[in-house]
Amino acid sequence: MGRVDCEVVVIGAGLSGLVAARRLEGAGLSVRVVEARDRVGGRLLNVEVGGGQVVELGGQFVGPVHHRVSRLLDELGIQTFRTYNKGLHLSESQGRLVRYRRVPRLSVVGLLDAGLAIRRLDRAARQVPLERPWEAANALDLDQETAETWIRRTVRSHFGRSTLRLFVRGLFSAEPENLSALHLLTCVHAGGGFFPMASTTAGAQQDRVVGGSADICTRLSSQLSSPVWLGSPVRRLCWSDDSVVAESDSGSLRGHLAVMALPAALAACIDYRPALPADRSQLMQRMPQGNVIKSVAVYDEPWWRAEGLSGQAASDEGAVSATYDSTPPAGSPGVLTAFVEGRRAQQLSRLSFKDRRETIVGCLERFFGPRARNTCSWHELDWSAEEWSRGCYGAHLPPGVWTQYGPALRAPVGAMHWAGSETATQWPGYMDGAVASGERVAAEILGRRPPAGLGRTPTNK
Amino acid sequence: MGRVDCEVVVIGAGLSGLVAARRLEGAGLSVRVVEARDRVGGRLLNVEVGGGQVVELGGQFVGPVHHRVSRLLDELGIQTFRTYNKGLHLSESQGRLVRYRRVPRLSVVGLLDAGLAIRRLDRAARQVPLERPWEAANALDLDQETAETWIRRTVRSHFGRSTLRLFVRGLFSAEPENLSALHLLTCVHAGGGFFPMASTTAGAQQDRVVGGSADICTRLSSQLSSPVWLGSPVRRLCWSDDSVVAESDSGSLRGHLAVMALPAALAACIDYRPALPADRSQLMQRMPQGNVIKSVAVYDEPWWRAEGLSGQAASDEGAVSATYDSTPPAGSPGVLTAFVEGRRAQQLSRLSFKDRRETIVGCLERFFGPRARNTCSWHELDWSAEEWSRGCYGAHLPPGVWTQYGPALRAPVGAMHWAGSETATQWPGYMDGAVASGERVAAEILGRRPPAGLGRTPTNK
Repeated sequence: MGRVDCEVVVIGAGLSGLVAARRLEGAGLSVRVVEARDRVGGRLLNVEVGGGQVVELGGQFVGPVHHRVSRLLDELGIQTFRTYNKGLHLSESQGRLVRYRRVPRLSVVGLLDAGLAIRRLDRAARQVPLERPWEAANALDLDQETAETWIRRTVRSHFGRSTLRLFVRGLFSAEPENLSALHLLTCVHAGGGFFPMASTTAGAQQDRVVGGSADICTRLSSQLSSPVWLGSPVRRLCWSDDSVVAESDSGSLRGHLAVMALPAALAACIDYRPALPADRSQLMQRMPQGNVIKSVAVYDEPWWRAEGLSGQAASDEGAVSATYDSTPPAGSPGVLTAFVEGRRAQQLSRLSFKDRRETIVGCLERFFGPRARNTCSWHELDWSAEEWSRGCYGAHLPPGVWTQYGPALRAPVGAMHWAGSETATQWPGYMDGAVASGERVAAEILGRRPPAGLGRTPTNK
Repeated sequence: MGRVDCEVVVIGAGLSGLVAARRLEGAGLSVRVVEARDRVGGRLLNVEVGGGQVVELGGQFVGPVHHRVSRLLDELGIQTFRTYNKGLHLSESQGRLVRYRRVPRLSVVGLLDAGLAIRRLDRAARQVPLERPWEAANALDLDQETAETWIRRTVRSHFGRSTLRLFVRGLFSAEPENLSALHLLTCVHAGGGFFPMASTTAGAQQDRVVGGSADICTRLSSQLSSPVWLGSPVRRLCWSDDSVVAESDSGSLRGHLAVMALPAALAACIDYRPALPADRSQLMQRMPQGNVIKSVAVYDEPWWRAEGLSGQAASDEGAVSATYDSTPPAGSPGVLTAFVEGRRAQQLSRLSFKDRRETIVGCLERFFGPRARNTCSWHELDWSAEEWSRGCYGAHLPPGVWTQYGPALRAPVGAMHWAGSETATQWPGYMDGAVASGERVAAEILGRRPPAGLGRTPTNK
């Protein structure tokens, strides 16, 4: 196994790492990317559903609110199409399944309750400074309680609380008690508020990527001057202020600086020499990944459309908390995507594949009727069992972590710069946040004065 | 680097791993212990303070409430002596430093407030089943809030709250918001209640170990038939239901079963083949280590004794939250031990050694007067910067973790059995819990039917 020299070593070939690598190469630096998996894309992953069509087992949605992703897609010449959003949506709560077009057909009181809860969430979120949440006026109070107790304290009505809990699960694939109120409010502010985040039309779920979102990473990596080192987990990282040697299963990469573009839970597992400073080490023990099982049910055709249904359902009761119509742009095969999040994902991940599938199909049948049973094929991914992600959609911060370790989140450590969607101040946890974080670390690195005598292309030694 | 075969591989030569190894050898099994550090003892660590005397930079106290440790000390022929507990104690709160003999000289109201808070804590704790905290009647509610909001909700008075917060910091070296109320109550029940845990006389701090507590581990390891493999971090663990191969920096150990006697934050960093089940992987992302800096100020003699002071102080204000007289049994040199815990440890760990020492000496001076400045020597350990502990005193469970992942805490995974003080149902986080956990995994392993053809002593291959 050889050693390769370059200026910047990028650890992790997910979206943030590849965006950083492309920027840095574009600025004339020599870059190498090393990746634990045998593929690029990280939490973006396509699966074939027949006829050359793909859908996503990982991150899937983009929207007009995601300016960075939109620009990147334009640059790469990748098209988007609208998430199917016609017909009636379904909402299940308190044992009742209701159909609705724009807002659930609830009592006026229920609607007012939900509206009030959302307004309170948005107002509180706007008070949190995005760059330094720990400096919010009431940061300590908000960080001392869970999002769950904040919801209970702030919202009195059953439907208001249920609305926010569903939103939290959908955002973090974690339970509201797993994160601090400060973390919830920070992320809501960073996403522009409840409606931009929760909406399909004009919101974060409006669009999908032709060819599947993972294609973004495939194209980014193909534009790099050197191929990504796949199947090469970095086991050891020797570092100083201006040098790194990343020892992977395929050999070593030596550079002046490093982009750490992997989840904190994985970054914590590298053998750092010297050991990391206490702040960083402690922070990385306190950023668990969420817990989601994403299932893809494939049918001959999207039969629910003809029945006037959008394929979108939300439930605060069963195993499946949300579904979407994920039919490819060609219009067939028909695809329903089901999300099992947080506590329910943890419960379902203990079941056998067969029992898990039965549970999820049972939910789809409850939502959409008996035809939901007639699947042609079935795909699922329990992201918490993925060794090189250890959970999805992303990391969350439990109570106390922002106010104790927040400043360590983006602070470089010697030659190491920390990327990853969770470090973004806009749309953390989304693809847009990943792009933002890649651009930020690239700018950080380009802003450092490079040691003399660099600029050569990578050489094998 | 060779490979050694044995029946049980013990990973971690802290107290729990060594106790397990000794038990298993005692039952006739062949055992090998592998350890990342170049010493045994884990979070137990002696430091020389002159004249052949030692004090502890790690775990220090035992008490008559610790039956397992007491029995172990008897078996090893190790003596204990009383923690110095004469004279006046100090308590600092709301800008006032008060001296007291048995209970702080507070207003009657203040004493009633503290008494009421403690009674509420103990009563609530007794409702939590030790083996299965997630089955407590109100487990979900208690797990959905932080210990901080539980304290605020349950205790109204300033002094009552302050008493419990100090207790939490002293127990977990974490802030009350870092853990769930369910975790606090579980641990309080497991320690028999506030007074056995917080007390010197008749409590968990009554006694100290002649020769320093780390001597327990030195003696345990010297009784093993094979030397512990020191300086040998296990990087990879190949496992099945009845076999393990632990690949360390010094070679491989092959066995039928494994004792995992290391903190979850470190166990999470091993490269498991196959990858761990989701439950276990997620749990280990959610058990951060606490944060404590322990300092040892050495003086010619314990001058505070002559001034009628016990050397014990507690503060809810400054950097130092607690001090003890840690003078060796010989009576000299004089030693004051200062604990900086939780948020304050994290703040102090960013300072230079000099500034940190100045801050801590400043606290000692405030407590004990200007003579506190005249140290002969000074020792400190920031446990959060320790690569092979990643924090002390131990791990805590943030909100939601007990009810989502609790059953995974002690459940064997294939051939792997999980030890460590945090897994104990009595005195978790204490030396006694470490002993208990070592005994439990030994019993688990002896209760498994061993594959045929085993019983030979380790052989080099």
